[in-house]
Amino acid sequence: MPQIESRTKLPVAILGATGSVGQRFVTMLANHPWFEVAALMASERSAGKTYRDAVRWVQTAPIPEAMADMPVTRCEPSKTPPLVFSALDSSVAGPLETGFARAGACVVSNAKNHRMDPDVPLVVPEVNPDHVALIECQSFGAGSILTNPNCSTIGLVLALKPLADAFGLEQVHVVTMQAVSGAGIPGLSSYEILDNVIPFISGEEEKMESETRKILGSLRTDGIDPAPVTVSAQCNRVPVIDGHTECVSVKLSRAVSADELLEAWRSFMPEPQQRALPSAPQRPIHVILDPAGPQPRLHRDLDGGMATAVGRLRPCPLMDYKFVTLSHNTVRGAAGGALLVAELAHARGLVVRTADAGRIQPALPR
Amino acid sequence: MPQIESRTKLPVAILGATGSVGQRFVTMLANHPWFEVAALMASERSAGKTYRDAVRWVQTAPIPEAMADMPVTRCEPSKTPPLVFSALDSSVAGPLETGFARAGACVVSNAKNHRMDPDVPLVVPEVNPDHVALIECQSFGAGSILTNPNCSTIGLVLALKPLADAFGLEQVHVVTMQAVSGAGIPGLSSYEILDNVIPFISGEEEKMESETRKILGSLRTDGIDPAPVTVSAQCNRVPVIDGHTECVSVKLSRAVSADELLEAWRSFMPEPQQRALPSAPQRPIHVILDPAGPQPRLHRDLDGGMATAVGRLRPCPLMDYKFVTLSHNTVRGAAGGALLVAELAHARGLVVRTADAGRIQPALPR
Amino acid sequence: MPQIESRTKLPVAILGATGSVGQRFVTMLANHPWFEVAALMASERSAGKTYRDAVRWVQTAPIPEAMADMPVTRCEPSKTPPLVFSALDSSVAGPLETGFARAGACVVSNAKNHRMDPDVPLVVPEVNPDHVALIECQSFGAGSILTNPNCSTIGLVLALKPLADAFGLEQVHVVTMQAVSGAGIPGLSSYEILDNVIPFISGEEEKMESETRKILGSLRTDGIDPAPVTVSAQCNRVPVIDGHTECVSVKLSRAVSADELLEAWRSFMPEPQQRALPSAPQRPIHVILDPAGPQPRLHRDLDGGMATAVGRLRPCPLMDYKFVTLSHNTVRGAAGGALLVAELAHARGLVVRTADAGRIQPALPR
Amino acid sequence: MPQIESRTKLPVAILGATGSVGQRFVTMLANHPWFEVAALMASERSAGKTYRDAVRWVQTAPIPEAMADMPVTRCEPSKTPPLVFSALDSSVAGPLETGFARAGACVVSNAKNHRMDPDVPLVVPEVNPDHVALIECQSFGAGSILTNPNCSTIGLVLALKPLADAFGLEQVHVVTMQAVSGAGIPGLSSYEILDNVIPFISGEEEKMESETRKILGSLRTDGIDPAPVTVSAQCNRVPVIDGHTECVSVKLSRAVSADELLEAWRSFMPEPQQRALPSAPQRPIHVILDPAGPQPRLHRDLDGGMATAVGRLRPCPLMDYKFVTLSHNTVRGAAGGALLVAELAHARGLVVRTADAGRIQPALPR
Repeated sequence: MPQIESRTKLPVAILGATGSVGQRFVTMLANHPWFEVAALMASERSAGKTYRDAVRWVQTAPIPEAMADMPVTRCEPSKTPPLVFSALDSSVAGPLETGFARAGACVVSNAKNHRMDPDVPLVVPEVNPDHVALIECQSFGAGSILTNPNCSTIGLVLALKPLADAFGLEQVHVVTMQAVSGAGIPGLSSYEILDNVIPFISGEEEKMESETRKILGSLRTDGIDPAPVTVSAQCNRVPVIDGHTECVSVKLSRAVSADELLEAWRSFMPEPQQRALPSAPQRPIHVILDPAGPQPRLHRDLDGGMATAVGRLRPCPLMDYKFVTLSHNTVRGAAGGALLVAELAHARGLVVRTADAGRIQPALPR
Repeated sequence: MPQIESRTKLPVAILGATGSVGQRFVTMLANHPWFEVAALMASERSAGKTYRDAVRWVQTAPIPEAMADMPVTRCEPSKTPPLVFSALDSSVAGPLETGFARAGACVVSNAKNHRMDPDVPLVVPEVNPDHVALIECQSFGAGSILTNPNCSTIGLVLALKPLADAFGLEQVHVVTMQAVSGAGIPGLSSYEILDNVIPFISGEEEKMESETRKILGSLRTDGIDPAPVTVSAQCNRVPVIDGHTECVSVKLSRAVSADELLEAWRSFMPEPQQRALPSAPQRPIHVILDPAGPQPRLHRDLDGGMATAVGRLRPCPLMDYKFVTLSHNTVRGAAGGALLVAELAHARGLVVRTADAGRIQPALPR
Repeated sequence: MPQIESRTKLPVAILGATGSVGQRFVTMLANHPWFEVAALMASERSAGKTYRDAVRWVQTAPIPEAMADMPVTRCEPSKTPPLVFSALDSSVAGPLETGFARAGACVVSNAKNHRMDPDVPLVVPEVNPDHVALIECQSFGAGSILTNPNCSTIGLVLALKPLADAFGLEQVHVVTMQAVSGAGIPGLSSYEILDNVIPFISGEEEKMESETRKILGSLRTDGIDPAPVTVSAQCNRVPVIDGHTECVSVKLSRAVSADELLEAWRSFMPEPQQRALPSAPQRPIHVILDPAGPQPRLHRDLDGGMATAVGRLRPCPLMDYKFVTLSHNTVRGAAGGALLVAELAHARGLVVRTADAGRIQPALPR
Repeated sequence: MPQIESRTKLPVAILGATGSVGQRFVTMLANHPWFEVAALMASERSAGKTYRDAVRWVQTAPIPEAMADMPVTRCEPSKTPPLVFSALDSSVAGPLETGFARAGACVVSNAKNHRMDPDVPLVVPEVNPDHVALIECQSFGAGSILTNPNCSTIGLVLALKPLADAFGLEQVHVVTMQAVSGAGIPGLSSYEILDNVIPFISGEEEKMESETRKILGSLRTDGIDPAPVTVSAQCNRVPVIDGHTECVSVKLSRAVSADELLEAWRSFMPEPQQRALPSAPQRPIHVILDPAGPQPRLHRDLDGGMATAVGRLRPCPLMDYKFVTLSHNTVRGAAGGALLVAELAHARGLVVRTADAGRIQPALPR
């Protein structure tokens, strides 16, 4: 795919730019080949300050110079560029995102508010790229809303997709051990998590169960048919900075050998990799052979944090197989995942649309 | 039950007294109403030193004064007192424990070596107290071997037993998050576990699966019939000092309401509590109502670390119910559990037996 | 000292009873031989609820039954019992504590607001018990205010006092490694402290430097002459739950051997121990001989968390000696320390005074 | 500086290639512009295996492909390439390193054994580059031994050097909070360090005190005159993976403003940066303005882990100034530091020497 010339970079806004997910967007968009940050939007409290002054920066990489002195503005739909990344808190994301879509923006959101809306695609680009077409059903004119799933769902569906395609998937049992960064900042108190496990994350199990069925579901003309998979999730918080580890058991539709299963993971090469989208990991799934892997500290940063690591495949006495999957919750599971959704939509010509001219695609990367 | 006079205290030996489990035995036996430590036995390297000099003490409670200056001796069966607690490493435990049994000792072991022997009872006193009678099948003369299960098995079977009795138990899926103390000392390197999860503990899953079936099994005249329960275990190490947390899903033999299930746990009052054995927790199972509990740092020390905490009971989309169980792996899951086995056996008159006189019970606590 | 009959127990109130220090007061006062909790006071938001419902309990010991169903009331000076423990946040503590004193209460506060007031004693009972007499200079009628120092100061001055008395103390250099519980709840975000050190605690270094001089100072008729000691403090937060560890270097007024210094610590037996105050540790200072001690997890709970542990005494190339001191920051360094101040004041007859009758002491423990 | 053509790359060996420091050497030398790994040497136990099979890899980056299948050989001086990096354990490093030097190799060692030898330079390239000339005093023919200081010393002397040069340095008081990776693997048990601080690292304080004086000392014709600086060190282990944090107080020879001091750090641009050595950080010292910095997790990776971060500069009541310094202990403090020493020596023409032809420099990077 030819690189887009820098003069043609698409201007984007980040909503909720000062929060922890917003900071990740800022970092990942700093040198993006297609997109250019044109606006940093946040709450009333931050508006009017420079980004440097408004943000409590918690990334290890420093604030990108190009953005440090940009002014932070209020979340004002009337000033939207064509593409908007939403890192808004769910307490405010719903109507604000709708407002930007109505104003003509393609909104790619990391918030949970619209994920289960019937006409809103919930997309993991390697898993259900065709679902992005669902925005045709939306009634925002040229605008649209696409969403990125919950951080614990992404690593799971990435590992499940090749199995569902090759062998059929009937049941999934998953127990998570999630990093503290998934709770945002401040999130959990240090007093709560040191030398401890918290076996409860509010709403998380329900999200994993329903989102997984939607993402693995089938695109119909007017919505998504959830996949006929039964999912049972148990979610825990553990003293880990980044990286969600998940113990998974699956029941498949037909008998399959472990080698076939490994091969399904290894040969997985879906649309984002075929299109070589800028943020796509080289390999979406890394099979870890070390019997004690994957581990969050060793494997969360594979392919820049955009890949999922799977390992410990072995038969399950109750279902068919069990294994461990791991992915970086604030990269792949949040900003990076949403960015890849936007790249997919843009490559498919769905970001910049002319409402009254139908779905016409302007000069775009192929 | 009347307290046994101190002059009648039964002399006991601790094998492997300098290791971490050995230290727990020393601590828990320091003021025991029935037993009195008569010998501290360990490897050649420690023999000849005082206990204070031989041990690298890692407990928060100081070394009990009465034992600090006792000499450490080699593990010499010919010098055995009637009751022996084995905290030996599995690399040496097998033949040594057999040797002590042949020499006439009642050996209560925390090592894995004899756990699955057909004629050796694997006992959690609240769960399968009748299994202790299996020592009648042993051929060590007046001596015997009883074992304590793996630390991750104990919390599980304590939570399962009331359900198995009341509703029938068909399937168990368990994912553990285990404390580092379970790996002994030195165990895991600090470099391996900080900011990390290790989704593998060698041999642990197999032990949980087979031990659970044996413990929940039925005593026959010549051995144990394993319970017809299918168990699938996934074991992880997390950065927690003490306390194993386990996410459990169960399939029961009949439909049951959550309230019935809670009531089964709350009303569980088995033999150790009925006999008020000295180390028995007041309540073997504490139901935690806090939606975010049980948690290792908050609940591992309930009833002195001898109780199991359960919580988060809710329906499982795949099986019937899921819940979380937690227990202290080095108290209940090791030394404390073995001590309770010894108390049960002693209360049943099985520790001090006269070989040629049959199973005659001397003056014992009732 | 004769036990006070339970019918004579002094009624006390806890201000800020729902916070983390307030919870410690509740726990430590549950079975106190002299004091009885008569009122649990907190913010408007909690008032009207039972304590059980108002509190987010974070202690490992459960809520004492006697207090779980007590109503929480607003901080109302007009309803004060004779003794009040303040665990108020410093944002509101100042005028509220003054109000309770004016209403006739003896207020023992853990907040920083009044600590450096010229007429308010800042007391560590083993170090400067005579300073409690400073309340005679206060103008609250029968009421009074006494304060407890910052959690990082207490362990330091306990270790310094015997040296100051025996050898003269000229300079102190201290670097702290403080537990997260010192920041209260929620305090630090777990994301900030895992795998990290934060070398800054706002205001802490200034407090350690000035409080140390006041506590080691001399009582004059109208105030405290600060001790002529130069103190330099550097304060750090580390991933430890409880227990502040401090690396100290001291310059003394005269040459002294390490043995003399150790003997000064060991023979330290000040007023709280002589009076056997209920919360006084048996030994205020434990000398740890293990070359790698003291350590927070091993030594913070000595004497119920009320003692200080010192160790690693060795010459300092720059000053005279260096050593490590450790104390439990939420027990000795907060609620427990304040409780001991109250016990000292009560034993000296300073809690219940009749304003117009002079400092008359009612029937009290001797 | 012109890049050296790849055909001219200097062959190097790594001694102790399978340990944790050895692994870092392997990682950092994988694509080095000047050096090429020709031999991986380790203990008898590993010899004969491929590197992949011999090593228990603990780095987050995978094993470099080029080295994964290289055979591991015994540490055999007769087969030495011209440059040797030693990551040997101190229990064996002494005579082995001497052997390699006698065989003609330039040995750059991370072990402590030869650091304080009078004729062995102890080098931090930004601090005492001229000390490398000390190898002229050695009697190994064309071979030589250079050493890298202890991981806790490096961050300290980097921060001190600009101050010593500009203002004179008289006294240094330092308290460290060191990462667990500094103890190697396995190093500390996870049971020892979770929720804990260990205020003792064997031999560390002595090393910091003596090494600092040697590194800041003056090169004489026959050795190093230690700097007339008094150093007092206190060393602690904290639950941090990588990155040593140090609280420093300094007494300077003349009065100086904080701004002058900051300027001395910021303008520090010594030989490695002037020569743009391949592993030299762009800036050896980063001044962190965040009042709560530097912090290990946020700042240990600055300039690839090769820079030191300083911050929190403020007056010290006892000495002149206090501040915090931080550096990555296994990159800058071990393999990376040694690599930079080798680059400096090579750029100065001291690695490949012809013994009988004097110190003639072959075609080398300028």
